[in-house]
Amino acid sequence: MARGDGRLNHDLLPGEKGPQDACGVFGVWAPGEEVSKLTFYGLYALQHRGQEAAGIAVSNGEQILVFKDTGLVSQVFDESALESLQGHIAVGHTRYSTTGGGGWENAQPTLGATAGGTVALAHNGNLTNSFALRELLAERYPEQPAGSPGRPSAGEIARGNTTDTAIITALFAGDPDHTLEATASEVLPHVEGAFSLVFMDEHTLYAARDRHGIRPLVLGRLDRGWVVASETAALDIVGASQVREIEPGELIAIDADGLRSSRFAEAKPKGCVFEYVYLARPDTTISGRVVHEARVEMGRTLAREHPVEADLVIPTPESGTPAAIGYAEASGIPYGQGLVKNAYVGRTFIQPSQTIRQLGIRLKLNPLKNVVHGKKLVVVDDSIVRGNTQRALIRMLREAGALEVHVRISSPPVTWPCFYGIDFATRAELIATGLGVEDVRTSIGADSLGYISPEGMIEATEQPVEKLCTACFSGTYPVPLPDVERLGRHSLDARRIPITPVASTTR
Amino acid sequence: MARGDGRLNHDLLPGEKGPQDACGVFGVWAPGEEVSKLTFYGLYALQHRGQEAAGIAVSNGEQILVFKDTGLVSQVFDESALESLQGHIAVGHTRYSTTGGGGWENAQPTLGATAGGTVALAHNGNLTNSFALRELLAERYPEQPAGSPGRPSAGEIARGNTTDTAIITALFAGDPDHTLEATASEVLPHVEGAFSLVFMDEHTLYAARDRHGIRPLVLGRLDRGWVVASETAALDIVGASQVREIEPGELIAIDADGLRSSRFAEAKPKGCVFEYVYLARPDTTISGRVVHEARVEMGRTLAREHPVEADLVIPTPESGTPAAIGYAEASGIPYGQGLVKNAYVGRTFIQPSQTIRQLGIRLKLNPLKNVVHGKKLVVVDDSIVRGNTQRALIRMLREAGALEVHVRISSPPVTWPCFYGIDFATRAELIATGLGVEDVRTSIGADSLGYISPEGMIEATEQPVEKLCTACFSGTYPVPLPDVERLGRHSLDARRIPITPVASTTR
Amino acid sequence: MARGDGRLNHDLLPGEKGPQDACGVFGVWAPGEEVSKLTFYGLYALQHRGQEAAGIAVSNGEQILVFKDTGLVSQVFDESALESLQGHIAVGHTRYSTTGGGGWENAQPTLGATAGGTVALAHNGNLTNSFALRELLAERYPEQPAGSPGRPSAGEIARGNTTDTAIITALFAGDPDHTLEATASEVLPHVEGAFSLVFMDEHTLYAARDRHGIRPLVLGRLDRGWVVASETAALDIVGASQVREIEPGELIAIDADGLRSSRFAEAKPKGCVFEYVYLARPDTTISGRVVHEARVEMGRTLAREHPVEADLVIPTPESGTPAAIGYAEASGIPYGQGLVKNAYVGRTFIQPSQTIRQLGIRLKLNPLKNVVHGKKLVVVDDSIVRGNTQRALIRMLREAGALEVHVRISSPPVTWPCFYGIDFATRAELIATGLGVEDVRTSIGADSLGYISPEGMIEATEQPVEKLCTACFSGTYPVPLPDVERLGRHSLDARRIPITPVASTTR
Amino acid sequence: MARGDGRLNHDLLPGEKGPQDACGVFGVWAPGEEVSKLTFYGLYALQHRGQEAAGIAVSNGEQILVFKDTGLVSQVFDESALESLQGHIAVGHTRYSTTGGGGWENAQPTLGATAGGTVALAHNGNLTNSFALRELLAERYPEQPAGSPGRPSAGEIARGNTTDTAIITALFAGDPDHTLEATASEVLPHVEGAFSLVFMDEHTLYAARDRHGIRPLVLGRLDRGWVVASETAALDIVGASQVREIEPGELIAIDADGLRSSRFAEAKPKGCVFEYVYLARPDTTISGRVVHEARVEMGRTLAREHPVEADLVIPTPESGTPAAIGYAEASGIPYGQGLVKNAYVGRTFIQPSQTIRQLGIRLKLNPLKNVVHGKKLVVVDDSIVRGNTQRALIRMLREAGALEVHVRISSPPVTWPCFYGIDFATRAELIATGLGVEDVRTSIGADSLGYISPEGMIEATEQPVEKLCTACFSGTYPVPLPDVERLGRHSLDARRIPITPVASTTR
Repeated sequence: MARGDGRLNHDLLPGEKGPQDACGVFGVWAPGEEVSKLTFYGLYALQHRGQEAAGIAVSNGEQILVFKDTGLVSQVFDESALESLQGHIAVGHTRYSTTGGGGWENAQPTLGATAGGTVALAHNGNLTNSFALRELLAERYPEQPAGSPGRPSAGEIARGNTTDTAIITALFAGDPDHTLEATASEVLPHVEGAFSLVFMDEHTLYAARDRHGIRPLVLGRLDRGWVVASETAALDIVGASQVREIEPGELIAIDADGLRSSRFAEAKPKGCVFEYVYLARPDTTISGRVVHEARVEMGRTLAREHPVEADLVIPTPESGTPAAIGYAEASGIPYGQGLVKNAYVGRTFIQPSQTIRQLGIRLKLNPLKNVVHGKKLVVVDDSIVRGNTQRALIRMLREAGALEVHVRISSPPVTWPCFYGIDFATRAELIATGLGVEDVRTSIGADSLGYISPEGMIEATEQPVEKLCTACFSGTYPVPLPDVERLGRHSLDARRIPITPVASTTR
Repeated sequence: MARGDGRLNHDLLPGEKGPQDACGVFGVWAPGEEVSKLTFYGLYALQHRGQEAAGIAVSNGEQILVFKDTGLVSQVFDESALESLQGHIAVGHTRYSTTGGGGWENAQPTLGATAGGTVALAHNGNLTNSFALRELLAERYPEQPAGSPGRPSAGEIARGNTTDTAIITALFAGDPDHTLEATASEVLPHVEGAFSLVFMDEHTLYAARDRHGIRPLVLGRLDRGWVVASETAALDIVGASQVREIEPGELIAIDADGLRSSRFAEAKPKGCVFEYVYLARPDTTISGRVVHEARVEMGRTLAREHPVEADLVIPTPESGTPAAIGYAEASGIPYGQGLVKNAYVGRTFIQPSQTIRQLGIRLKLNPLKNVVHGKKLVVVDDSIVRGNTQRALIRMLREAGALEVHVRISSPPVTWPCFYGIDFATRAELIATGLGVEDVRTSIGADSLGYISPEGMIEATEQPVEKLCTACFSGTYPVPLPDVERLGRHSLDARRIPITPVASTTR
Repeated sequence: MARGDGRLNHDLLPGEKGPQDACGVFGVWAPGEEVSKLTFYGLYALQHRGQEAAGIAVSNGEQILVFKDTGLVSQVFDESALESLQGHIAVGHTRYSTTGGGGWENAQPTLGATAGGTVALAHNGNLTNSFALRELLAERYPEQPAGSPGRPSAGEIARGNTTDTAIITALFAGDPDHTLEATASEVLPHVEGAFSLVFMDEHTLYAARDRHGIRPLVLGRLDRGWVVASETAALDIVGASQVREIEPGELIAIDADGLRSSRFAEAKPKGCVFEYVYLARPDTTISGRVVHEARVEMGRTLAREHPVEADLVIPTPESGTPAAIGYAEASGIPYGQGLVKNAYVGRTFIQPSQTIRQLGIRLKLNPLKNVVHGKKLVVVDDSIVRGNTQRALIRMLREAGALEVHVRISSPPVTWPCFYGIDFATRAELIATGLGVEDVRTSIGADSLGYISPEGMIEATEQPVEKLCTACFSGTYPVPLPDVERLGRHSLDARRIPITPVASTTR
Repeated sequence: MARGDGRLNHDLLPGEKGPQDACGVFGVWAPGEEVSKLTFYGLYALQHRGQEAAGIAVSNGEQILVFKDTGLVSQVFDESALESLQGHIAVGHTRYSTTGGGGWENAQPTLGATAGGTVALAHNGNLTNSFALRELLAERYPEQPAGSPGRPSAGEIARGNTTDTAIITALFAGDPDHTLEATASEVLPHVEGAFSLVFMDEHTLYAARDRHGIRPLVLGRLDRGWVVASETAALDIVGASQVREIEPGELIAIDADGLRSSRFAEAKPKGCVFEYVYLARPDTTISGRVVHEARVEMGRTLAREHPVEADLVIPTPESGTPAAIGYAEASGIPYGQGLVKNAYVGRTFIQPSQTIRQLGIRLKLNPLKNVVHGKKLVVVDDSIVRGNTQRALIRMLREAGALEVHVRISSPPVTWPCFYGIDFATRAELIATGLGVEDVRTSIGADSLGYISPEGMIEATEQPVEKLCTACFSGTYPVPLPDVERLGRHSLDARRIPITPVASTTR
């Protein structure tokens, strides 16, 4: 990773349309604290939400500096980078996926020039009316010359090759006559889709969450300041106490005058169920439910829905662990460790050599031969996306002497794309698209395969079904998709959704 | 990752005596393969043995290049660094501890100029007769001018301020009339203590293990080459098959002529029992015993030796997991996850800010309140060194609502220093020095505390007791300690061991 | 105690505007008595009103000397310092907060050169029309050369970087043609805000209180002299009998001719309700109400307004003690001591070491585990400002085994800044700004949280509501705020109060 | 207090015999920590055991520096004094009483020159065979020239004008051929009486407790070090966990080799019962009993033994508070605060002026008139020594309108001198010597007076009576008194015990 040229400068709007991403956002307002370090640790705790790039912007009350690059949080920042970011407000971001290779230009926070200064913005989610927003942008600031700093040119807008984040930043930044707070209050009601935003100008930290509250966003309190973050676990790591969630449709502002809350849209909660299944950390609490407990309960439900005679329940570490514990508990089959995860594997940027590449899954997981040998195994995982991981895993376990491998999955088959911030894969890549469960079982080579039922999964979250988005499992999209409808040439029925294929990680 | 000053140059012998270290070593001989990448992945799998520094030396048959720096393997190396290391032989090293701050000059492999070229050497262990070796060095190469490259000056030797690794490198490098193989065969019988060495000159890969085989060292085979590594898990990750262990007192050489084995000393095996307890990866096999299984068995034994009425068995992740599984199995108490480990915490180089520092253990572990609240817990860990982690952990669990916390430790109290490569801490820092179990229990704040018996631990390894070193638990040192005796003013009987206090990691 | 650089010299007006402060003032006129020692003990009894700095000025009828320094009264003065202060009139001051670090230059009494000599002045309160007063100052003494001793230069006045106390001193000191008494009578009607002043020239002791009587000021009689002090408790300690309060809008003068009273403004009493809640000593009487009794009654009211099932009522010592006694009495739940206060902690000047710092609240309070273990506690405190103390306290109590912690607060949520002399914190730091009670409860981690109602608090003072200032709870400011309005760019309606953030103490 | 000349130098043995003292001792061994600051805070928590003088000695491994002076801990030390004390071992002391005024020469730790360096020693207790020890000293080191550093001269020894602490220091320091550890092991069996010693040479921290364990001494553990202290509350304030008590007759040594324990005499425990009554902090634990709980229980017992009809139970703050709570609980009479303590009164060194002096008790306590007016009061205190405090208090309460004042004392009458470290007063000063309870009641002016029975007091400690020393109440001295017997001319029967009259505080 190119660290030598870690950049410290203002961010021009990128010329390329990036992919939509599920990311981690973090913001802090805390005079007297080292906000860049707090943000560093906050992003650290959110690393699982995005391992491709990381960035931190800091305001010292007079100007905003941003430092961002591709890589893990601990790879992007070192002591001197953090010390260069002095101030009392900070916004940070970890980025999940990226189309190309290097691409620091898609890292966040993004910057835009406002009348009074600068806006820095970090975004988790995905907008569903970007076409309309581009038109709104052109309408609001018609005279804006192309290439004017902090704003996409008319051509860029026409070509549509701007990220969601860039569009929001441009909309927030563009108004010379209003404060950022006033502009945001005006613009946010027009923005559709999923967005958990943390942004700031020189003086104020803002946080906003779409009216559906699809992605999580929580408010915490430091001894002498405030924190907003994607997950409660990021509050824990910086010692902030959990105050409450940012409410769907709420905009909050924090500055020297304290915390102000306003509502830009009526709340219609549709929290993403996949946060409970996989995305969030187990020690995070969403809508009052500890994610770990939801996952254990999914495992218990799986055991009731798909019992099997076996000798040992093992998880695909780490994401399958809670459900495996629940499965073992409910089934009475002992729980064990059959796979060792290479603890230090994150994202390495090292292309495996020819010899290495064929090892595939062994770079991440190594079987404990003595544990699995001669055993009938239940292997519990949270989800199957492409099926490649499971196929390699089952082969590896059989090689290690497993008698039977029964796969249990703590979410239903993923068959629909997410337009609200998760890049599962193209629909074509999703193994459960067009395949029945038996077909998937055959494809991955398992002795049996059981998915939890949608009802079982939902009950485990302890949320009312009408307050959840389960579109990736059900195809029922609770939030309008004007962009999709506008593209016209593809339709949901044809199951060819115009999502850009991305080089996503194997999970 | 190549930190700003990532160095790519020949390594001069450092002028300061560094601490002895428990490290990971890796070597590969494989024409036609990208040996630097194989070594990168091998070190990756050995990252747990040393997180302070990493290095790789590569020979292309004509010259040797080395690249090393402080940091995790994934931080030290990027694609371009690895591509600069072209060749067919490689030696790599991960380093465990360091006296001073940055100190890349203590990173390995070390280099020395030989008659015919260069020697690059990586070492895991600790010598016990460095005084005698320094004299041997002065005797063998009296005419060596001070400051001659790759060799300590007479003054440096006299002052004794050289590392073990530097001494061995100097002894191997010094002879203008012999090949490295001949020199090594001559020198090795004089070296006492623990050493697992992997080294090379331009043409040949060597590996040697002390006559007691204290630290592990294994041989593996690639389709078109050979690998030596500290642990079998490093063979697995590069797809090498396990061949056998390098035997105690054996020197092997691998080059275009194939593999040659010779014996420089009679084997008197005394394998380190702490490798089974904590040091080695669970998926590594030592002397035929899978480490994970030994640990699970230790947990079962603990349950028999120290039963308790409780609601849940939880591990201190990850090192306590296997024993916790064994404890749960043998006691019938359910196994669960009560603590979430921050998966990406390794070595960050970022000094925690004031606010962060006081969080302490929360940077690493976050409790799952819903799991532990109102429960009587058995918390299983592999060992107690200073007791700080356990004290903080128990306090955190109580705060999260645990009713009782019963600590079970899968090794006996560590009360004696290791002279064979493990930097536990100074004796004064070892909490079990001079304190009974009840005192330790009080100090860490547990409701009860049980250590496995020495016999129970040993049986779990399935090794005959006479082939194990258990000095850190028993004070019986099976391998002579001429350096200690030579220091004179302190003796083991007086229980005043001259171990240099080092800033070791808290584990 | 005379710290190394304890200064004994005339006080120049400071060049920087300091923060407004809630302090303690004391004055004595008593020929034949050791007035410096009487003042020392008087300040001792007022130590709770200001622990940052202390000072005493003494007149012997010919000249005025002042001795002041940062620190507690007992640290600033020793026997020899007091003996150097010979005379028959004295004015003393204890100072509450300070913007910068050491800063003895902001300690009081301040001195100014008058026509006839010197004025020494001590002030408790905060002015609200300092802009207008600066203009008045420029108008009255236009010819005043810059840098003239005891007086701000025209430039200093223009820049506005002078303290309230410096402005008053300058106004009092400036007139070459009038006595101090005449000048004060002329100037005081123009001064707005809260002020309890004690001042003197070489011959006369003066005391004045703003027309609203916001801060307390009482008159007492010695056998052979007079005393004025912030609180009756300071009269008690020097054996003075309570005579009456200095009335709002009253100026008194005491000298060899006896006591003279005049009125410079009509009385419109608005006594600070927070004096009853927290600021004043429990053994002080304000407007006929013993503060302790008011606090006990607040506790009784709390018990009626926020009952809870619990085993024990404990105070946060010492400030929560009276209300806890009242709560216990009215609820029938036993009263106990669950926390031991470190009696000697005041202001130590010793920076806690790293190890110590993380102990935080333990430096002040230590829980009695046997008392709180297994108990449902009601913890009574007088107020919540930032919430940090309560959060740490609750965590400590839980760790000590408390089953439940129910927090009861004997004042309503503090949500508005005080412009009349209390530096609570910036609005952003006030935890109740923008957070509901439930949010605060979550943030501090209590099982329940109850604040007394505004009505309950007011009734406990036995004062008619129209004679109290409750602005910090209600946002209704009974006394005009010309400075705030003048600053213009922020208004109270917008809830953006231009209070300078200061490094105030944590309480 | 003379702070300007705070001395930092080696301590010569003083030429005057000082009084015996009940003090606080503290020691820490912790490389890498700021030991002087830890000691500062430890002494802070022990301030109640001695407010006359304070001192800290620090070793950096090569030399020992000491800084000590009269005054409170927070008066003696400032930041720069502590920073001048760099090292990894420290010994600290707070001193209870002193014969003369200034007298820093009696402050501890004391220093003595040993063969290999220096010994620094802090002592709490009182020796009972100082004559014999002086002879032993002369015998062991006969050739010692007068005035030789670190050792009293022969003349000094003959005149007997050396403190206990100086004698021990001289005995430990004198042997040129042995280590301090060996010398201490040899000397300690000869030392009789009460001693809790903390001492060190350049390399090692030692702690020793007399065979009767009369004064408390506890061992605690820091994350990377060890602490010994008079009370557990001092462990709490520095974040050390309680390990165990130093056992009677035990000598421990702590250095780079860890903790060593040896026994110099058989344990015959006789813990001082007055520690439970008054001396120790309420949050300290002695022999497993939390002192606060013992005191509350004493109050309950008092209520049963001496019931009375009354309206309110009030303590003499703070020492009477726990027993008052217990009395209120057991009697059903409400508990209240009738007296406000001047929180910042410690030891002021300011001689009250004539006017002030007659105020007496008002400098410390101020009655809450509204609380006591018209009430029948039970006033609970821990003990009566001279009776002056109680007499003044009762007068003050009656003046404030109390109808009746019933005094209840949570210890039996103090009638015998303590030879083991407490300077109550001379026997002649003890009000209960020769007076019956009714006489004492009349003398102090109470309506009734009740002391707890010896049995009640002992039961409240939960210690077996044979393990307690109750000599001050019973006249039965469990530990031999060779000095007293040797003096001959006075006998215990004559009740004229040769204890030097001292200017003790009024307590």
